[in-house]
Amino acid sequence: MIKMIMHGCNGAMGQVITSMAAEEKNITIVAGIDPHDTKANPYPVFPSLKECEVAADVIVDFASVKAVDALLDYSMEKKIPVVVCTTGLSDDQIRKLEETSNHVAVLRSANMSLGVNLLMKLVKDAAQVLAVAGFDIEIVEKHHNKKIDAPSGTALALADSINEAMDQEYHYVYDRSQVRNARDKKEIGIQAVRGGTIVGEHDVIFAGKDEVVTFNHTAYSKAIFAQGAISAAKFLAGKKPGLYTMQDVIES
Amino acid sequence: MIKMIMHGCNGAMGQVITSMAAEEKNITIVAGIDPHDTKANPYPVFPSLKECEVAADVIVDFASVKAVDALLDYSMEKKIPVVVCTTGLSDDQIRKLEETSNHVAVLRSANMSLGVNLLMKLVKDAAQVLAVAGFDIEIVEKHHNKKIDAPSGTALALADSINEAMDQEYHYVYDRSQVRNARDKKEIGIQAVRGGTIVGEHDVIFAGKDEVVTFNHTAYSKAIFAQGAISAAKFLAGKKPGLYTMQDVIES
Amino acid sequence: MIKMIMHGCNGAMGQVITSMAAEEKNITIVAGIDPHDTKANPYPVFPSLKECEVAADVIVDFASVKAVDALLDYSMEKKIPVVVCTTGLSDDQIRKLEETSNHVAVLRSANMSLGVNLLMKLVKDAAQVLAVAGFDIEIVEKHHNKKIDAPSGTALALADSINEAMDQEYHYVYDRSQVRNARDKKEIGIQAVRGGTIVGEHDVIFAGKDEVVTFNHTAYSKAIFAQGAISAAKFLAGKKPGLYTMQDVIES
Amino acid sequence: MIKMIMHGCNGAMGQVITSMAAEEKNITIVAGIDPHDTKANPYPVFPSLKECEVAADVIVDFASVKAVDALLDYSMEKKIPVVVCTTGLSDDQIRKLEETSNHVAVLRSANMSLGVNLLMKLVKDAAQVLAVAGFDIEIVEKHHNKKIDAPSGTALALADSINEAMDQEYHYVYDRSQVRNARDKKEIGIQAVRGGTIVGEHDVIFAGKDEVVTFNHTAYSKAIFAQGAISAAKFLAGKKPGLYTMQDVIES
Repeated sequence: MIKMIMHGCNGAMGQVITSMAAEEKNITIVAGIDPHDTKANPYPVFPSLKECEVAADVIVDFASVKAVDALLDYSMEKKIPVVVCTTGLSDDQIRKLEETSNHVAVLRSANMSLGVNLLMKLVKDAAQVLAVAGFDIEIVEKHHNKKIDAPSGTALALADSINEAMDQEYHYVYDRSQVRNARDKKEIGIQAVRGGTIVGEHDVIFAGKDEVVTFNHTAYSKAIFAQGAISAAKFLAGKKPGLYTMQDVIES
Repeated sequence: MIKMIMHGCNGAMGQVITSMAAEEKNITIVAGIDPHDTKANPYPVFPSLKECEVAADVIVDFASVKAVDALLDYSMEKKIPVVVCTTGLSDDQIRKLEETSNHVAVLRSANMSLGVNLLMKLVKDAAQVLAVAGFDIEIVEKHHNKKIDAPSGTALALADSINEAMDQEYHYVYDRSQVRNARDKKEIGIQAVRGGTIVGEHDVIFAGKDEVVTFNHTAYSKAIFAQGAISAAKFLAGKKPGLYTMQDVIES
Repeated sequence: MIKMIMHGCNGAMGQVITSMAAEEKNITIVAGIDPHDTKANPYPVFPSLKECEVAADVIVDFASVKAVDALLDYSMEKKIPVVVCTTGLSDDQIRKLEETSNHVAVLRSANMSLGVNLLMKLVKDAAQVLAVAGFDIEIVEKHHNKKIDAPSGTALALADSINEAMDQEYHYVYDRSQVRNARDKKEIGIQAVRGGTIVGEHDVIFAGKDEVVTFNHTAYSKAIFAQGAISAAKFLAGKKPGLYTMQDVIES
Repeated sequence: MIKMIMHGCNGAMGQVITSMAAEEKNITIVAGIDPHDTKANPYPVFPSLKECEVAADVIVDFASVKAVDALLDYSMEKKIPVVVCTTGLSDDQIRKLEETSNHVAVLRSANMSLGVNLLMKLVKDAAQVLAVAGFDIEIVEKHHNKKIDAPSGTALALADSINEAMDQEYHYVYDRSQVRNARDKKEIGIQAVRGGTIVGEHDVIFAGKDEVVTFNHTAYSKAIFAQGAISAAKFLAGKKPGLYTMQDVIES
């Protein structure tokens, strides 16, 4: 049984992870850290890491940027691997995180969702088979009507992942209404749909001669990052020092 | 049993209709017209209408533009309703067709597919309920990689159909990558996907607060126009003079 | 501006409606009723209807079964139309509700979702066109892995709606693995998918000769009932006495 | 440039491959074999292999079961790798094919579609990540209304492929309407939809906590086997003796 410390246990994500971890067989939360003692948790909660002397195999962090430095110090001192899910780290913090990873296992990823990270890998494999066989590649993403940027970062990351596998031969096309040309073989069309409260949906489409293969990822809430964090924690416990990403979790 | 004359019976569409009509209970082809006597058909074939004295309830036309004038003359003279599926009529021919419809039932439509014409009507009904309730409207269409125009005529027709029901309040948006704005309430985003040999797929998406209603039409071949033509023929037989469209078939 | 009383304003659904109503132009909440004064609302809250003397055009109810009798009495006495969203009413309460509707407008529906109720109507229209033209009808529904019944009530309601429009000619088939027969023309296949936390997804599929028309409804949360309730309130304000359902809202 | 002999060049599949090969850069048909000289081909056609002395790198076979023995003899004698797409081989022929593969490269697969074979592999990879993380697995397949068996062989092959990767822990469920139980973690639900002329569509669904990953394969015609055969031919040319399958093509 992997023993986990939940750093930021009383935040929204900390609470989601707490309830999800309760259903897991191979991992258990042995302590929580949170300055706000506002929730009833099935484990002891300490206001900060320095009060916590509970033995653990891994720390999962969904706290605040301010708490990251103390977190990395604690991880290094206690030699407990740490999954850093907090975003918006400063350059100094990223450097400190890399430095820390020389001494203890540290995992950090732009997107913690297991499904998206898996697709990132599988569309590469698919492109190497299907694009080589002449299939065209297109991406359609859908998000809520408040999102101001298009296409989504995840759509671009999926396209980049494919392009990396294909020797950067592809360029991206966002609008086909202004030209009257047949499609270029080396383009990836990326289309953005906006409406309602759609959390996030991505289709990667490989269209060939009379067959189409589509990879779809649909998110229903931000809780998907909790699932990814737990998988990352299971993966990281017991790992030797180094800087890991969700791709390592996927490929393990 | 409705008796039908197949005008242009040995062309690709004429042959598809011939095989589909054979499976129909309420309609039968009693004669075919075609200058090229290249196929074996289960009915007598005449090189042109003027040789044909077979009694009939309706004519279905999938011949050539050149043959349309003689077709309309024959329809009027014999008082046999006619479904004109040939496209690319001249302005003179359209006027003649309208004139003919004062004396006999004539049906003509931009798109003979039953499914597309049904959607044209249903998305109107949907918009009047869902758009009024605050749902956003988006259209995604997919076609093969040889298609040079975007978006498809059918996508625009679907958008126009909605817009007509909504007092022309909407404008269309084809590209979201060049702006960083939240979506306008009165826009219909229309996105075009191009790849492989996709015959034609249309999604009309109504996205609201935590629910999405999607209408999808997928074409597998151009045979869908044959199905529409047969439905139109069944509808038109026995109708009084007038100009009809596939919307009348749908609404009947 | 329609003035609305929110009955059960501090419950989960009451709060969702409160925040959604704040974004509406034609309707405003003028009073809330709730014995638990636990939330900050932008309108006065009374512990029960009898303390409330605020003038209103419509009441929306998402309270508890126990409060329904007093609600109906108040609605009748004040002649304020009422949208009853509370479920699990006793037979006595249903009789009282029907009796009340002789004196004031009352709306009650099995499912308050606007999208599902719209589909209920549109699949009828679609069946009358497509099924008559030989299209086969199939339904696929998807729900979370805790749901113990299959198929879903909504899937059956969609099938029943179609069957009603088709003179009850259809029977339902839930399993095709035990027979080796081609599909019967008069069957509606209903398939249930279970997995993860899927809130609820329904596909009604009309499959014809080389074309398929699919109606999809996807729910992202139970907040969709809030949207439906607000639409129902707008519809019901000013209506004469009678018993209404969501179908009346859709068809208005 | 790979030189290919098309065995059975005037059959339906042979003709599709002929037109697709004309658009390929790295492979060219140098000779065709067919007893029926009914088509105009851009290469010499011989009534049988024994008349053919054209140098070649690979043979693609879409002829008839009767011709397989002579084909294998020719392949072995000339040391030309052969892609056997003809189905319904006898046990004797399968033994002879295996024996032949000791001397020359032979490729044979149950399903020649590139897309389906790729999915077979990718769903394994997906299961090892997602099923381990608690995602439920479901399959939905759709075929035309004349298909008498359910579920499809391809749906079962996809399920078997996943199950193989998961130590055969899963069992398959085809009907959920007869029980009132929550879903078992170790089941794969397989649902069959039948309607119209749908060529073949498969969804493999991984449903987790608030996210769903779906792999979809849609076939538009049997021409997809032609694409697979050409990819197999490119792969097999120059390979050393052995028995290969489409999985080797995918993984190359």
